[in-house]
Amino acid sequence: MEDTVNAFVSQFEIEGAAAGPLAGLTFGAKDIFDVAGHLTGCGSPDWARTHGPAEAHAPPVATLLGAGARLVGKTHTDEIAYSLMGANAHYGTPVNTAAPDRVPGGSSSGSVAAVAAGLVDIGLGSDTGGSVRMPASFCGVYGLRTTHGAIPIDRTMPLAPSFDTVGWFARDLALMDRVAEVFALPPADSRPHRLLLPVDVWAEAEADTVAAVAPALATLQAAHGPATPLRLAPDGLDIWFETFRVAQAAEVWQAHGPWVEATAPSFGPGVADRFRMAAGITATQWATARTTRETVRARLEAVLDGGAVLVLPTSPGPAPLRTASEGDLDTFRRRALRMLCAAGLAGLPQLSIPAGLAGGAPVGLSLLGGRGSERTLIAMAG
Amino acid sequence: MEDTVNAFVSQFEIEGAAAGPLAGLTFGAKDIFDVAGHLTGCGSPDWARTHGPAEAHAPPVATLLGAGARLVGKTHTDEIAYSLMGANAHYGTPVNTAAPDRVPGGSSSGSVAAVAAGLVDIGLGSDTGGSVRMPASFCGVYGLRTTHGAIPIDRTMPLAPSFDTVGWFARDLALMDRVAEVFALPPADSRPHRLLLPVDVWAEAEADTVAAVAPALATLQAAHGPATPLRLAPDGLDIWFETFRVAQAAEVWQAHGPWVEATAPSFGPGVADRFRMAAGITATQWATARTTRETVRARLEAVLDGGAVLVLPTSPGPAPLRTASEGDLDTFRRRALRMLCAAGLAGLPQLSIPAGLAGGAPVGLSLLGGRGSERTLIAMAG
Repeated sequence: MEDTVNAFVSQFEIEGAAAGPLAGLTFGAKDIFDVAGHLTGCGSPDWARTHGPAEAHAPPVATLLGAGARLVGKTHTDEIAYSLMGANAHYGTPVNTAAPDRVPGGSSSGSVAAVAAGLVDIGLGSDTGGSVRMPASFCGVYGLRTTHGAIPIDRTMPLAPSFDTVGWFARDLALMDRVAEVFALPPADSRPHRLLLPVDVWAEAEADTVAAVAPALATLQAAHGPATPLRLAPDGLDIWFETFRVAQAAEVWQAHGPWVEATAPSFGPGVADRFRMAAGITATQWATARTTRETVRARLEAVLDGGAVLVLPTSPGPAPLRTASEGDLDTFRRRALRMLCAAGLAGLPQLSIPAGLAGGAPVGLSLLGGRGSERTLIAMAG
Repeated sequence: MEDTVNAFVSQFEIEGAAAGPLAGLTFGAKDIFDVAGHLTGCGSPDWARTHGPAEAHAPPVATLLGAGARLVGKTHTDEIAYSLMGANAHYGTPVNTAAPDRVPGGSSSGSVAAVAAGLVDIGLGSDTGGSVRMPASFCGVYGLRTTHGAIPIDRTMPLAPSFDTVGWFARDLALMDRVAEVFALPPADSRPHRLLLPVDVWAEAEADTVAAVAPALATLQAAHGPATPLRLAPDGLDIWFETFRVAQAAEVWQAHGPWVEATAPSFGPGVADRFRMAAGITATQWATARTTRETVRARLEAVLDGGAVLVLPTSPGPAPLRTASEGDLDTFRRRALRMLCAAGLAGLPQLSIPAGLAGGAPVGLSLLGGRGSERTLIAMAG
């Protein structure tokens, strides 16, 4: 396969089981998942030179191989997965085939680019703060973030362990569900699911993005009834964003601080800023964030009680241009995280559905449900 | 009639026409409308001492009398009508019978209080920036702001002439429509009306207010189909609010600056602040506001094209407590004006419908439509 979109760190072939529900299909694995005998590079040359080859497959890789899928390579990630845009200062930016002048989104950048370009059927990624949902929206494919803890994620570089989840991309919904079944996620339930429209999250999206996803919402409403508006964050999404930022950064530093201090890696610009910020989080800040996080979890639990499902734009807008300044990217990222952080804070699954075009580039509409609702969300989107 | 709620400046009786569609009904008129032989006090003792009795009825008063309604008195207004809360430093605060510990809203404070208390059938008011809509929401009654220019408003104290409109309150929708018919507003049209949900306006409302109005929205959606979300102000409601604030203040100063400079009235605290602010608006600020106002008008025209109707909470929340600080009131007022300013800037009608309780106090849901859509909005609410 010719890697026309700079999606792959390395290409190789590992055959899957001879028979299985994914037989005949291919996948790429984000380069934070261990593949036996290969280096797990994590988007960082300094990481690569300070780590050896993996001894065994990470469980999600083993599961897909066991279901018959063929692994065709490891895909690019943002550096240490600590970004949402898909740009890597060392390895370049994979091509967003749906909008070649724009970034593909990250940190699961190579997996989404490979799926969008038709190079693989399934792109294995991870989602801590939006690293599957955001690129799915940017590239016009389906992307699922799973319930925290539902799929074992060891032998995988942690970013912020209490947020990290496995996710994947595909171009069609039936395949999204087949993979979810392979991962033994609970079957879709058949009870009615009330749609909720979090107006404060919607208000973060650009006007033409709201307009672009409206027809997809109308389709969902035709099947599930009118969405009920609600204000998701009673005291404001800024507090939720700040809680996410602090708790994630504290865990990132806990996971990687010793390595950063020992290695002094030459990080790209945005990543360097975030690691510096992470190093400065105080114990008091972290404690406050953990306390606030519990109120967010409780709010989500109350809101989703009885099987309700939130419907929201995945991203504030289409992907930023590849030429966007670091400042513009940061503004976009903050706005995006106000929209994305609910699922991360509460450990909940979210499915991004390709929904339309804004400014000629894809935007996604998301369904966010309770724990274990992945296949229900997929069924609702169908 | 005993004025149990401090709604009336003065009580008297002027009989309406012997027969007519409003025969047998009573009304109170906000004390900015001229009533022949009576002083128009405008909520200001300084205004009262510097003005004489009116020579003739203001047209809206004459119209209601001509339709058979009996005028039973003039009702309190916020000072020079330049407030939204219903508190008057000189004459006190009318009682909100639906929530006696809270303000009734203003500036049509006495008219709304009299209607809510059942003292009159119709409360005649005016709406520049929300002075009918906001008190209707606070007191749990219907309130209509009409299309700018649809009902002649001479022999009435101007506040900001390019924003000033006639409006009224009633406890039932059938009467709202009967009054609209008396004012010769166009009949309801029978074409389908698509509901639009302006997410940025909704996001200004408190969480329990959004929850409180959701059932009324559901009823509207059952009749008119699911509301389509849209972002009303593409560049943010802050810009719309600022445009409203500047343009209104400039017109207020144009209308009343000479009198203020000649009289040096002893204004209540919030009103004094706003007149000081109005005195300082520069020609450049005003010109910018007029230009931006045209973009707002164009945006509303595009959004409402084809008969679409916006559905939105009338107010950020229930009425503030009577004991709220001037600072808290100002915060609430700014948020309220971000939600209310669209109709004012674009000169459009808006109907506030009593929709439920938040924190035990009333909140309203509004329908905002194109020019001349008043009776269509009333029909949709039925």
